[in-house]
Order: sequence, then C-alpha cells, then structure tokens
Amino acid sequence: MQARLDAVKAEVALALEQAILAFPAGELREAMGYACTGGKRIRAFLVMESARLHNVPDSAALPVAAAVEALHAYSLVHDDLPAMDDDDLRRGQPTTHIRFNEATAILAGDALQSMAFGLLASDAVGSAAVRVALVQAFADAVGARGMVYGQMLDIAAESADQPLTLEEITRLQDGKTGALIAFSAMAGALLAGADPAPLAQYARNLGLAFQIADDILDVTGDEAATGKRVGKDDAAGKATFVSLLGLEGAREMERDLIARGNAALVPYAERAGNLRELARFVIERHA
Amino acid sequence: MQARLDAVKAEVALALEQAILAFPAGELREAMGYACTGGKRIRAFLVMESARLHNVPDSAALPVAAAVEALHAYSLVHDDLPAMDDDDLRRGQPTTHIRFNEATAILAGDALQSMAFGLLASDAVGSAAVRVALVQAFADAVGARGMVYGQMLDIAAESADQPLTLEEITRLQDGKTGALIAFSAMAGALLAGADPAPLAQYARNLGLAFQIADDILDVTGDEAATGKRVGKDDAAGKATFVSLLGLEGAREMERDLIARGNAALVPYAERAGNLRELARFVIERHA
Repeated sequence: MQARLDAVKAEVALALEQAILAFPAGELREAMGYACTGGKRIRAFLVMESARLHNVPDSAALPVAAAVEALHAYSLVHDDLPAMDDDDLRRGQPTTHIRFNEATAILAGDALQSMAFGLLASDAVGSAAVRVALVQAFADAVGARGMVYGQMLDIAAESADQPLTLEEITRLQDGKTGALIAFSAMAGALLAGADPAPLAQYARNLGLAFQIADDILDVTGDEAATGKRVGKDDAAGKATFVSLLGLEGAREMERDLIARGNAALVPYAERAGNLRELARFVIERHA
Repeated sequence: MQARLDAVKAEVALALEQAILAFPAGELREAMGYACTGGKRIRAFLVMESARLHNVPDSAALPVAAAVEALHAYSLVHDDLPAMDDDDLRRGQPTTHIRFNEATAILAGDALQSMAFGLLASDAVGSAAVRVALVQAFADAVGARGMVYGQMLDIAAESADQPLTLEEITRLQDGKTGALIAFSAMAGALLAGADPAPLAQYARNLGLAFQIADDILDVTGDEAATGKRVGKDDAAGKATFVSLLGLEGAREMERDLIARGNAALVPYAERAGNLRELARFVIERHA
C-alpha cells in the first residue's frame, strides 16, 4: 500500500500544481499552492483505489482526487482562521493566514473550493452524466449535512454550556470529516456508474475511526510527529471521543469501526486489500 | 422591465429559500438566509432574460438564477469581513458577521458557494451536458481570472504604494464584478447550447458601467439610498473610476460602455428590450 500511496501523492501533487497554474501569478496563487502542500493524501488515495476497484483509468480519477484534496485544503485554511479554530501550525508549517495574511487565506480557500468543482467538471473525468453526478454528490458533501455543517456544530460546541454527548460528537464528525471521506471512497463507483453503497459504508466507518485516531493523537502524540498543536482540545475543555470514552474505550470503538468498515468491503474480495490496509494504517498512527 | 424585475425577485427569493431549507435548522442556515436577503437581483434578472431570449423555460433557468445570487451573496459576506473590506452595513442592514459572528459568516459564505454549484447541477436545469458547461463556466467566473482574483487585486491595491491606473482598475473590476455578470448574461445561451459571445460582450460592458455607477454613487449618494457606507473609497485614498477620470469623465465612460454593450445586442433585435432598459436603469440610479 505504501508504494501506491506514494505514487498517488506524487500524481495528485502534480495535478493540483497544474490546476493552480491556471490562476494568474501572484500572492493568491502562491497561497493556494501553499495550502495544498503536504498532507497524507488519504482522500486522494481513496478516490484512486475506489476507481481502480471499478476499472476506471487513473487519468479519469486523477482530477477527482485533486478536487477532494483541494477541497480538504480549503477547509483546513478556513478552519485554522483566527475567527474559527485559531491555529498557527498545520502539517508542521505555519498555517496559511500566518504565512500570508487573513484576507489572502480566506480568498485562497474560496478559490480552492471553486477550483475543486471545476476539476470535477473537467473533460477528462468522463461523460457529462458522470460529472454531474460527481458535482451533485460533492456539493452535498460540502454543504447540507456535510463539511461546513460539521464545522458549524464544532464552533457552536465551543460556546455551549455543556460538552457534547457521544451522539452529538458522532454527528458532528460525520459531517466535518466523514462526508468528504465518504465522497472520496464513493467516487470510483460514481465514475463507473456503479452502486456506491458498500464503499460509502466502508468510508463512514473509516472516517469516524480516523477522527478517533486524531483525538487519541491529540492526547498521546507530540507536535513533531503530528505537525500540528496537540493537547488543544483538552485545554479548551472540548469533548472528544477520548474525553467521553477514555483512552481504552476510544481505542475499542476505533477497532470496532474498522472491523465494520472492512466488512463492507466483502463484495470486492481481495481486490480491496489496499483499502483494508488503509484502515490498519489509521490505527498504526498511534499504536 | 420593472414588472419583470419584480417577478424575478420574488421567484428567485423563493428558489433560494427552498435551497437553503435543505440545510439543517440552526444558525448556519439562518445566516445563509440572511445573507441572501434583499439586493437588486440584477444577476438573476440577466439569467432569466437571457434564457427568455433563447426560449429556455423559466423552470430551467430559475436554479441558475438562484445559483448566481447565492454566489454573489457569498462574495459579499466574505468581502465584508474585518480582514477584508471590514464593512458593517450592507443592503441597509448589518453585515452577516455583525448580525451573527465572524466564524458563522465565513462558513455561511462557504456553504453558499457549494450550494450555488449544487443548484447548477440540479436536474431541472437541463441535460447533463448543459449542466457541466454551466459548472465549468461558473468555476471560471469565481476563480482563475474571475471574482476571487479581482477581490485579491482589490485587497492588494489597498496596501500598494501608489493608486491603481485606469488599466489596472479595469482589470480588477472585470474580475471582481464583471465575471459573474458575464456568466449571468451568458447563462441563457449556455442553457440553449447557443453562442454566448454577443451576451458576453453586452455583459462585460454593462458590468464595468455598473461599477462606474457604484463609484459615482459612493461620491454623490447617501447611505439611505445605497444601503451601504458611502465615501469609503475616497476616505481610504482608493483609486476609483471617479478619482481617475473625474465625475464627468466617469459619466462619459459609463455612457460609452452602455452604448457599446447595447450594440452587442443587435442580433436579438427588439426582443432584448429588457436588457437595454437594464443598462439605462444603471445610469438612472445616480442621475
């Protein structure tokens, strides 16, 4: 899996660079490139692997992989802003508004969102029907009960009187990170006009496990390894899966989710080996 | 024209309300609705009129009209933020970040952008090919040399050592407001699979005339009539069409642009009466 992940990383970095080069030279373009640098590229990997499972050529899947990474990058840039999570470190580097300034960071995020939609609609992706289906699913993953909604719940939780319950935090994370991870995993099926339900189920479980791993790392990890500030949630008195379930309880829920996620991959048999390994990789980050 | 404009206003307000109702109840949804309230709906009117010129039914054009107004609303919300133009009054009401808060305003803007793309891709709009063409043109109007790029030039101009030249300010405004106005006017042709060039030429001229009218109003208007702060550009030492050309020179350029814009409507003969009237309406705002 590592070789495939490295290959995807290189390909998607190039695709993002090319898309960003369509913008006029200047600080906005620089900030867009900066925001898209680094990261684990888990979402791109999900797009490329789910495409491979449905025999969709890499050339069709790559703009979609770049789109999800551009959208993910935009969400991080806006989430890190002073008015939101007020983070100064991301992927081991100053966040975009620290490296540039707030106005540039807001605009770079805005431009990355529209660039993502443009990439989904690009000719290489497939028939017009396929591209429209992707745009519709993508718009849902951002808005409605998706990413922006989850972030809003997260912001609201900070000023709430009492910490979130397990049900509330699950709903929050399912929107904030789960929706785009689910879109990424479903992309291959959408590209092939196949049923995306098994991949959606895999991804919903994986996404939540991923968030639990993040919460565990926020307690057990260090900044050098994670590339971002740790212990922030605890300091802010924020409810996390760890604060609600304890460290061992969170680990157990994570294992359970991954088992359920992998069970959804049965229809793909051994061809889904990389996706099963990805789930293992999530746990190993903090093992 | 006024009757048609009023009808479009009512229809597009309803379409926006319905689209926003797809979001879960809460502050984010409220802020989205608040940001989409009011406004002249010039862009929606351009969509509906250009659709009518190409015999596209209102039911197909309406989601597109709602999309351009949602996108326009998002751009105003983000432009008004403290890190950007720092405006507290818009359409005669407190701006979104004043009425709610900054985080909510950023997220509402983000959600309105994705909602706009979702509306363009909705089934009622037409064939998948038409919808993909709209999404592509829309993504260009936001990013690359479009709205976000123009706003970036605007922000950069504020910290520049010397005021912009006429050429620079024209490029800036062509991106910041011209690109979306051009998209709106071209939408009818794109919906019908017709050549959008005449409407694009009309709109590029109209958009610039519209901006000049805004600059004139910033000098001659009052807050009660414009619904936003006036005299701001002058106080900030910002170059405008009026500061570069003088009041009479700006009025002359505006008339010239409108004549050129209307000349592009010749292929549509008398059927483009409403579009010609819209151009007159621009001038009458400050006559």
